[in-house]
Amino acid sequence: MKLATLRNGARDGRLVVVSRDVTRATDAGAIAATLQDALDDWARVAPSLEALAAQLEIGAVPAERFHEHDALSPLPRAFQWLDGSAYVNHVELVRKARGAEMPPSFWSDPLMYQGGSDAFLAPRAPIQMADESFGIDFEGEAAVIIGDVAMGASREAAAAAIILILLVNDVSLRNLIPAELAKGFGFLQSKPSSAFSPVAVTPGELGPAWDGGKVHFPLRVSLNGAPFGRANAGVDMTFDFPTLIAHAAKTRPLTAGTIIGSGTVSNKGADGGPGRSIADGGLGYSCLAEIRTVETILMGAPKTPFMRFGDTVRIEMQDADGHSIFGAIEQTVERYAGAGRSCDAEVGESVPTASFVPASGGGPGPASSEDAPDA
Amino acid sequence: MKLATLRNGARDGRLVVVSRDVTRATDAGAIAATLQDALDDWARVAPSLEALAAQLEIGAVPAERFHEHDALSPLPRAFQWLDGSAYVNHVELVRKARGAEMPPSFWSDPLMYQGGSDAFLAPRAPIQMADESFGIDFEGEAAVIIGDVAMGASREAAAAAIILILLVNDVSLRNLIPAELAKGFGFLQSKPSSAFSPVAVTPGELGPAWDGGKVHFPLRVSLNGAPFGRANAGVDMTFDFPTLIAHAAKTRPLTAGTIIGSGTVSNKGADGGPGRSIADGGLGYSCLAEIRTVETILMGAPKTPFMRFGDTVRIEMQDADGHSIFGAIEQTVERYAGAGRSCDAEVGESVPTASFVPASGGGPGPASSEDAPDA
Repeated sequence: MKLATLRNGARDGRLVVVSRDVTRATDAGAIAATLQDALDDWARVAPSLEALAAQLEIGAVPAERFHEHDALSPLPRAFQWLDGSAYVNHVELVRKARGAEMPPSFWSDPLMYQGGSDAFLAPRAPIQMADESFGIDFEGEAAVIIGDVAMGASREAAAAAIILILLVNDVSLRNLIPAELAKGFGFLQSKPSSAFSPVAVTPGELGPAWDGGKVHFPLRVSLNGAPFGRANAGVDMTFDFPTLIAHAAKTRPLTAGTIIGSGTVSNKGADGGPGRSIADGGLGYSCLAEIRTVETILMGAPKTPFMRFGDTVRIEMQDADGHSIFGAIEQTVERYAGAGRSCDAEVGESVPTASFVPASGGGPGPASSEDAPDA
Repeated sequence: MKLATLRNGARDGRLVVVSRDVTRATDAGAIAATLQDALDDWARVAPSLEALAAQLEIGAVPAERFHEHDALSPLPRAFQWLDGSAYVNHVELVRKARGAEMPPSFWSDPLMYQGGSDAFLAPRAPIQMADESFGIDFEGEAAVIIGDVAMGASREAAAAAIILILLVNDVSLRNLIPAELAKGFGFLQSKPSSAFSPVAVTPGELGPAWDGGKVHFPLRVSLNGAPFGRANAGVDMTFDFPTLIAHAAKTRPLTAGTIIGSGTVSNKGADGGPGRSIADGGLGYSCLAEIRTVETILMGAPKTPFMRFGDTVRIEMQDADGHSIFGAIEQTVERYAGAGRSCDAEVGESVPTASFVPASGGGPGPASSEDAPDA
């Protein structure tokens, strides 16, 4: 079953069931108004949603064309977003670039941060930022949405709580990170609003590519239309999702609708060293920080710039037949026009927050004349 | 106006308006089913809630007795909980105790962490924890609930977004903090579920004690029935709430229902040094870590233990006439019986998460025979 949330003017949008080929949708409002409503009562509503999905596949219910650009993040706002760093290879690389040893405990004790979850960007919404000098980066990740998990839950109980799988662009402001982490309290300003894939799917939709803990498909990341990353989300993931969930639940319960991210997908090179770029015949990367790290290791300094106004990142995943599973995250970086005046406001709309976007707003707008694309 | 959320079996409870003297309540469901619903549409619903509050005061609407132990946290789950460390005195003290210099930037750049907001404890719910050795501590704080705030909002816009004021017990696991912060990603396991005061109030309820940025009343903290802290929340607060909100909104919008905490309330001593304990004629402390820090500075080692099973903390605030403003947070530490088996389950109930407690559960239960109280 595939689920999405369509923009309807309300903060949480409206729940739809999407066809397997991600082309058609049918309203699920008679079962649950929003995805959070469905997750709050999953055991009761899931069978009805599954039945609706089966009817949609055979054309037995009214359907509308599913437009990915009309989708909000499946949970436009969530009660919790916890992001792991499960590809420890990535962490080790980044440390290596700055000459720091990684503590051996990082291979056994998951890194995870509490992220902001109150205002996720729509999958096609621009990344509005006031200043390019923040070091704007994307992070391509897989994530799961879970049901209620009790404090102290076992890995097995955590695995059983996984309800949906989706993709994330965990937007990061690299040049704000060092000073913020030095303060000791984790990320805040350096991790602005993230965006999720248009569609979230039940594990069954992935067939054998879901082994109960990892997604065994390449994450397809493109930058300004060119392939940038094809790392396999099922490879080099040191901590699988059940392990990440159990880590999060050690001292507190987790409420239904909690989203757990994998951290930036990252594969080692064939020789066990840093992976090579796609141009260089490798699998590439799922964030700019990693290619800059590899450049630093190989050439003494980073060469690839962070995102500039006008740059576009696309993140998706295809099944074995080349069909899109989750739809695509596709976001262009735009200059933020200031509080009370967003780019949307330029076309005559007032947009108080990223999560509460009027029905016709929030899509990628025309590039501003101020944009300075960096191809 | 005073608002509370009563337990009704639903995850978000039901919204009631509470009388100024915190003794009576009237159902607000005809205006907004939950507090989050009200906050989502505050400009429209606030006048109706204010009118209902006025009617309640004069006895013109049906009222029920308001029992603080029936209240959930005003937002039983929230889309965001951001906690500052605005009493920089407290931060400096804690660092001093371990012989570390505090960077001068801490006086101008607020410390703030992204906290878990998916499952707040009820104000009278036990603090269930598997192990005393985690170093269980309370942190008495003030907090505000805000409306939508745009990215990059000014301090003035941030001030205008403050809707409600309340108190917090930010439960902390001191012995898990050093290792977790050393990993660099902030708090996760070391900050379990927090609890909020039974009642949240509009700024007008505080009269001149609210100056637009701070609450000028002592925070009354008691441990096992004995006075422990009387620090004034309006004194030594280096960063007021509008400053904290603007800091949080630098790179992202904040959605209505975001809660911003002050951090542990802490006052300097009369001589500008560490404050003295109440037993010693001082204003005392709002967390155990601070008295342990002072003990370390004065005596070379901490003397006061962290909370043990059976210990009870009470946090409240009184107006100039000695009347409770927010009701009281009162929580007893209990041994957590393990996933799938909580203390509530011992009396025949299944409690999946802290936030979703059946109508009759969640209150402080009888002390278990395993408890080892530390008076």
